[in-house]
Amino acid sequence: MITMAHGGGGKAGNELIHREILSRFGKGPLAELPDGATLPGNLVFSTDSFVITPRFFPGGDIGKLAVCGTANDICMAGGWPQYLSLSMIIEEGFSREELGRILDSVKKAVEQCPDLQIVTGDTKVVPRGAADGIYLNTAGIGTRIPVERLDLGRRRIQAGDAVLVSGTVGEHGMAILAARHGIGGPGVASDCMFVGGQFSSAVALGGVNIKFMRDPTRGGVGGILQEIVEGMPFGIELDESVLPFSAGARTVANMLGIDLLFSACEGRIVMIVDPQCAEAVVDEWRKLAGSENAARIGTVNTEGGKVTLRGEYGGRRLMIQPENDQLPRIC
Amino acid sequence: MITMAHGGGGKAGNELIHREILSRFGKGPLAELPDGATLPGNLVFSTDSFVITPRFFPGGDIGKLAVCGTANDICMAGGWPQYLSLSMIIEEGFSREELGRILDSVKKAVEQCPDLQIVTGDTKVVPRGAADGIYLNTAGIGTRIPVERLDLGRRRIQAGDAVLVSGTVGEHGMAILAARHGIGGPGVASDCMFVGGQFSSAVALGGVNIKFMRDPTRGGVGGILQEIVEGMPFGIELDESVLPFSAGARTVANMLGIDLLFSACEGRIVMIVDPQCAEAVVDEWRKLAGSENAARIGTVNTEGGKVTLRGEYGGRRLMIQPENDQLPRIC
Repeated sequence: MITMAHGGGGKAGNELIHREILSRFGKGPLAELPDGATLPGNLVFSTDSFVITPRFFPGGDIGKLAVCGTANDICMAGGWPQYLSLSMIIEEGFSREELGRILDSVKKAVEQCPDLQIVTGDTKVVPRGAADGIYLNTAGIGTRIPVERLDLGRRRIQAGDAVLVSGTVGEHGMAILAARHGIGGPGVASDCMFVGGQFSSAVALGGVNIKFMRDPTRGGVGGILQEIVEGMPFGIELDESVLPFSAGARTVANMLGIDLLFSACEGRIVMIVDPQCAEAVVDEWRKLAGSENAARIGTVNTEGGKVTLRGEYGGRRLMIQPENDQLPRIC
Repeated sequence: MITMAHGGGGKAGNELIHREILSRFGKGPLAELPDGATLPGNLVFSTDSFVITPRFFPGGDIGKLAVCGTANDICMAGGWPQYLSLSMIIEEGFSREELGRILDSVKKAVEQCPDLQIVTGDTKVVPRGAADGIYLNTAGIGTRIPVERLDLGRRRIQAGDAVLVSGTVGEHGMAILAARHGIGGPGVASDCMFVGGQFSSAVALGGVNIKFMRDPTRGGVGGILQEIVEGMPFGIELDESVLPFSAGARTVANMLGIDLLFSACEGRIVMIVDPQCAEAVVDEWRKLAGSENAARIGTVNTEGGKVTLRGEYGGRRLMIQPENDQLPRIC
């Protein structure tokens, strides 16, 4: 039987994807489960469905998320997003005014992606009770940056490489949880945004010195790092003292007992680079809107398959991934 | 407020699409609302979400439909389908065994499209009551047949052109309704299939003599023909005596009081061609599996914006489109 855990970034979800999807379709571009497929003709192709609740939250809404989510996935696969499809499943009785607000938000988000346009779509209506308001799906096509200029893959990572993140960590997850629990107070807004500016500036500065990148959505930064080291001869050590957390996200995380490292971001890049370009990329990111708190958070080492945390007072511990997704329906 | 009618192929759906979608996104390839967008680089891009109930029906299931539906839309936009995304929204508690059967069906359907592969995807799980079992979305990329060999557009249609259909009409809609109402008896199965063989044989025989094609899904053959003549200086006269209806579909339609002309197909092509190639295309179709009952069903005339029916005894009447979609959730 399918459980909520199967939809998460954790072990149950991985098992489902391996057993049901990769066993059937895993021979081609799907094999490595990238955020987007790289296809002949320098195309990148990616899709996501969005079932987030609440639909409107501080820092964004389902419409903005549906555009940024797929556009960011295309960047993370080394492409520049150009064409987007938009498919809607709407519950009977859904507010027309709310639909209009969501589509306005889609439009605004598309306009913030310089070369992106919506070119095709679909609308389905299901009876009351057969959906929760509205679900969106976007699929996107991008143009792959030529491999001579950007060559991504876990196989290229080696000890000594730097681990970068393009801003504060975990705010999207905390903004959604705060909205659900009606927690106001310190205020935390989702980091939901298009990371194209961060992507292209890093490519310009780092080029082939960039080894790997991913947007830390479901499972957060911790989940992505665990995936990166899984089965590989290298590990990652994070420096806890420099992890960029906002005060608002910290407060919500503490109130709810959640590890921010595993809380989703929707406007961040985790990047692994040759150390020679690490400083230049972080410095450039800090000049761009939305990535002012970019940081080098860790280093690749030779401890195969392990992510470790070095604490502020020098102690080291193994990072433990939560068994299941902590937060359902956050995207 | 959104009603079930907004999801149909009828007037309410058209109003929603024009008011909410085209007003915001209608400047580019979306303007003519084709089944698929034609993009630079000879790409065709299309998407559909699938919310059909029941999920398994005579002649197919939601998995087969999700593959054929998008693959067919790519053909109808003049492309040859190559890459598919598969996104699932699954309700908590959904049967794992049933998921496996649906994915087996997806796999089988993909294998029946010679050059198609699934290259990317997404899985979301929503809580019990937030979906009805499983919804699928597919988006597909195809390669456009060069315009020198295939030039499609309503603008090219003129009086004297022949209207063809690649097989019996309305079976998908009737199979779904029969399954819902537990009507067995004469038996009617969905026509759900990939129409790539019919598409490519017609292109080989007709080339630029093919003016327009569409798969008559929501709204059926009648709905598509009405859309074709809308606002144009030509009309279409159908010959009622040659409309290919199967005995099974006729029986269900009569029992339920439904006009088969507006019942959905999921494995048919409606094509408008120069009369010089009509016979060759129909003859070829009749040799192919699934299109044995292909027929020339009408002729384009000068009665702008009208679809008329010529009866078996010579009388003529105007075809009247149903106000709303007759059948919700048939795809």
